[in-house]
Amino acid sequence: MSKTYIFGHKSPDTDSITSSLVMCDLETKLGNEVVACRLGSLNKETEYVLNYFDIEAPELIETIEDGTDVILVDHNSPNESVDNIENANILKVVDHHKIAFETSYPLFVRTEPVGCTETVLFKLYKENGFTPDKTIASLMLSAIISDTLLLKSPTTTEDDKKTVEELAEIVEIDYEAYGLEMLKAGTDLSSFTIPEILSLDAKQIDFKNVKSIVNQVNTADISDVMKMKDDLEDGMNKIIEEEDLDLFMLLITDIVNSNSQVIAIGKDATLVEKAYGVKLEDNAVLLEGVVSRKKQVVPIMTENA
Amino acid sequence: MSKTYIFGHKSPDTDSITSSLVMCDLETKLGNEVVACRLGSLNKETEYVLNYFDIEAPELIETIEDGTDVILVDHNSPNESVDNIENANILKVVDHHKIAFETSYPLFVRTEPVGCTETVLFKLYKENGFTPDKTIASLMLSAIISDTLLLKSPTTTEDDKKTVEELAEIVEIDYEAYGLEMLKAGTDLSSFTIPEILSLDAKQIDFKNVKSIVNQVNTADISDVMKMKDDLEDGMNKIIEEEDLDLFMLLITDIVNSNSQVIAIGKDATLVEKAYGVKLEDNAVLLEGVVSRKKQVVPIMTENA
Repeated sequence: MSKTYIFGHKSPDTDSITSSLVMCDLETKLGNEVVACRLGSLNKETEYVLNYFDIEAPELIETIEDGTDVILVDHNSPNESVDNIENANILKVVDHHKIAFETSYPLFVRTEPVGCTETVLFKLYKENGFTPDKTIASLMLSAIISDTLLLKSPTTTEDDKKTVEELAEIVEIDYEAYGLEMLKAGTDLSSFTIPEILSLDAKQIDFKNVKSIVNQVNTADISDVMKMKDDLEDGMNKIIEEEDLDLFMLLITDIVNSNSQVIAIGKDATLVEKAYGVKLEDNAVLLEGVVSRKKQVVPIMTENA
Repeated sequence: MSKTYIFGHKSPDTDSITSSLVMCDLETKLGNEVVACRLGSLNKETEYVLNYFDIEAPELIETIEDGTDVILVDHNSPNESVDNIENANILKVVDHHKIAFETSYPLFVRTEPVGCTETVLFKLYKENGFTPDKTIASLMLSAIISDTLLLKSPTTTEDDKKTVEELAEIVEIDYEAYGLEMLKAGTDLSSFTIPEILSLDAKQIDFKNVKSIVNQVNTADISDVMKMKDDLEDGMNKIIEEEDLDLFMLLITDIVNSNSQVIAIGKDATLVEKAYGVKLEDNAVLLEGVVSRKKQVVPIMTENA
């Protein structure tokens, strides 16, 4: 029997990378032959995590052969998955996003409306009678801190908080100090070109008929990023043209003060104004308290589209 | 806060009715305000089960108001769900079918490729630290026996078998003797009109572009049902015309010997011949060993369509 590939979404974040490694550990414990994969480069934050705990990155893949057994973590939409996913045999899905896939066969699906895939994975460990070891717990802890911005994002649930407490005990770490360093590491944009910044955590999301890309960049200081505004806008306009987009929305999220500066370009940029009752000035506006694309951007933009 | 409605699919079978009651019990234990509902009349088998254990049927509903909180059990496709499901707020899905729904929000989804929804629900009880009481266990046991035809259907998994053993101990019942009587009760067609028989367990399934209804009727003696063949065919032809179908496939499944007599009518009836390498005679053919619509009909018919 050939191995089952486990991977998170394209443009992987810390949750996608660690969930792949963690699910690989769990499946191995369950006696299954699996391999942890990733669908793109590590971001700075994830690099920091893997370096900090001295853990190897999952294997990079771009496509799979027809009929390959796969397990999807931290995503379920074919748009965000590996190339040729439509010809894969999906064995399991463990995720915390909306449902955006269909199958012609029954399968194991485990999604919960929690802040991070790892919170669901932690339950799976318990249900199967396992406790994550220190390394695995480090990965899980890092991902929850990442996805919930240190438990401050509105996506954070009681389950996430409880899981972080339990994991921090296993890892024996001051998770708040570690978490802030980790988040800050993720905001270091110095080595990236403009096109790279614009694709770091870009998601194609259609707000009804408004074909959009929403990209999110975390920072400890918004003004630092806004220094690049002209270049960012040039890059965004180029992508809009290439991909025939109606809207490119860039969220520059202040992880310390929990706000987001938005730059919105495209023929439907006014959708941002309508959705939030604000006025774009020079394509930009500060959205107070907005830090979650999933909870504070997608539903509101969709409703107003 | 208004109550959450819990229901299985239209044309409810024993799994849909009991899963609604069982999930209602579990959610109540979890402190949630819920009400068990059903989307259609009880079949003879389910009537036998509820009478045998003296349990009241869930409340009959046909539609729901916009924004109602719902929990779906034993189905996830909007086609098989309550009217106006597209405007409901789906809190949870517990099921064992293929994925055939989408959402614009994350939610609790728990599907597994097992023989019966109750097998998944039994795990949820355990994970939450509960044991089903005797009444609830009776319902769960009956549904697994029903969906797996006494653990003989190819949809049966090790999980289903193990769950049946554990439940039979709680109920303190000889489940094989009880199960055979229950299945036989479900085969009593004496009080039904032909249109009723043709809608008892009818599912609209499109095999690629072949618009079809596949209806399954269980029996302890195929020849008993075949006495009504002419009348059944007249009824099927009428439905084909009314619904503009390409195929009406009636499976008359022998629950004792595990075979199905098929009557296939419609312009694409030859799809049955192609899919199984058989020849229809007078619209009919015996498919040896075929008892599962989900596992032995849908994938093979789809592949050959």
